[in-house]
Amino acid sequence: MSVHSKLYEGKAKILYTTDDPEVLLADFKDDATAFNAQKRGSIHGKGEINCSISSHLFKQLEAYGIKTHFIDSPAPNQMRVKSVKILPLEVVVRNIAAGSLCQQTGLPLGKVLQQPLVEFYYKNDQLGDPLLTRDRLLLLELATAEQVDVITNLALEVNKFLSGFWQQCGITLVDFKLEFGLDSQQQILLADEISPDTCRLWNTAEADPDRRVMDKDRFRRDLGNVEDAYQEVLQRVLQVVESKN
Amino acid sequence: MSVHSKLYEGKAKILYTTDDPEVLLADFKDDATAFNAQKRGSIHGKGEINCSISSHLFKQLEAYGIKTHFIDSPAPNQMRVKSVKILPLEVVVRNIAAGSLCQQTGLPLGKVLQQPLVEFYYKNDQLGDPLLTRDRLLLLELATAEQVDVITNLALEVNKFLSGFWQQCGITLVDFKLEFGLDSQQQILLADEISPDTCRLWNTAEADPDRRVMDKDRFRRDLGNVEDAYQEVLQRVLQVVESKN
Ligand SMILES: Nc1ncnc2c1ncn2[C@@H]1O[C@H](COP(=O)(O)OP(=O)(O)OP(=O)(O)O)[C@@H](O)[C@H]1O
Ligand SMILES: Nc1ncnc2c1ncn2[C@@H]1O[C@H](COP(=O)(O)OP(=O)(O)OP(=O)(O)O)[C@@H](O)[C@H]1O
Ligand SMILES: [Mg+2]
Ligand SMILES: [Mg+2]
Repeated sequence: MSVHSKLYEGKAKILYTTDDPEVLLADFKDDATAFNAQKRGSIHGKGEINCSISSHLFKQLEAYGIKTHFIDSPAPNQMRVKSVKILPLEVVVRNIAAGSLCQQTGLPLGKVLQQPLVEFYYKNDQLGDPLLTRDRLLLLELATAEQVDVITNLALEVNKFLSGFWQQCGITLVDFKLEFGLDSQQQILLADEISPDTCRLWNTAEADPDRRVMDKDRFRRDLGNVEDAYQEVLQRVLQVVESKN
Repeated sequence: MSVHSKLYEGKAKILYTTDDPEVLLADFKDDATAFNAQKRGSIHGKGEINCSISSHLFKQLEAYGIKTHFIDSPAPNQMRVKSVKILPLEVVVRNIAAGSLCQQTGLPLGKVLQQPLVEFYYKNDQLGDPLLTRDRLLLLELATAEQVDVITNLALEVNKFLSGFWQQCGITLVDFKLEFGLDSQQQILLADEISPDTCRLWNTAEADPDRRVMDKDRFRRDLGNVEDAYQEVLQRVLQVVESKN
């Protein structure tokens, strides 16, 4: 595989075209941003850690029956993926109240939701990724009603699998963000990444509300030991994956 | 009717109990606030104007078949209403994109929506009246799923009537906010007020985006001639109401 030109540089990854027009190479960076890129920094080793965690999770999800963009990982911080047209949606699944849900509804941090909540946000940095109602999403023609239903069900399936997987890691899956895209056959594939950058992960054995945090909230909220937490998440993922083989 | 004690003082009205426990007296004030009460002022004559406009619109809506809290107007700035338990929802109906819809979606100001958009906001000053998805509304138990459906249909019916009424006034109904409450029989009644404080009203004959504004946006955006605009809206309402008798 020969890598061609840089297609797009995001905040966490660089995408390169390859000799196969249906394949892209994603290069995971150590750069970290938060609050719509108002806060910027770097997490040493994050590129390799997130690429590795994402690769394992996509492989597991494929085995579970979810179609993803994942092909393989030719280098520790590189992932080959199927090129898709990303839908401009951030699909968030919540099991426990945290973050903007608490700020916007007054629900207490840590409140266990009776059923998972699937939410759609407009993936639009200029507008600050605002929450969408179903009607607004359809009005803006960000997806069709049928696509919304398919994605909602996929997100719930992903949540079912991941909740169990993280539980085996001794980690509570609080919430996470997914992105979906359309491949050349207009098929919906799970894309982007699944990592401590995109999930809220709490150490299940730890009750302390700051010490339990194993995800990007350590960076967002300056809780310290960010690299250690990411590294610990990867170690637990590797252990569970190896125990399954 | 003897008026008892002050029950509640809001930003635009004072509610008094009366000798009938099922009846309240609403006293409309000249006070004006905007941006969640960060901007404060006064619009001379607003109390009487809004009470008069609201009274006429509630009477018209009752005749159209919508159940409202309106009883009568014993004084120019006073309205007797059925006491209800207000649902903590601001129900917004939009015919044309404006305000927060534009800010949050990037839709251009003035874009005509193909069908009216009914939106629910959490009536909670502390949280800044945030937009609700249907799932968040149900999660917070602000209303039942059945109540949401009933209110959505009522809001669309109110919109159908009001759009026609304002059109007869030479006024384009851009959007408006409704509040609903439950009476002692758990019946849903349209409550609160319908006025230039709660509707976006554009002079249909006027193309200039500032000059056409006949509602509280004149106050919010310091466009001047606020009293004149409110007075002009009342005059047009009176003309149309009189032409119907
Ligand atoms: N399979 C794929 N095909 C095409 N694009 C993809 C694929 N997977 C992820 N992407 C996109 O790659 C881009 C780069 O990822 P990165 O996480 O760095 O972006 P971001 O800065 O978080 O988001 P963005 O720049 O899009 O606002 C993102 O826009 C993401 O949606
Ligand atoms: N029929 C009714 N029975 C009981 N309460 C009512 C009725 N109609 C309106 N209200 C309530 O009267 C209160 C006073 O009205 P006003 O418009 O001044 O309040 P506000 O300052 O806009 O809103 P709030 O103080 O509730 O945030 C509001 O809370 C409104 O919901
Ligand atoms: Mg990203
Ligand atoms: Mg009010």
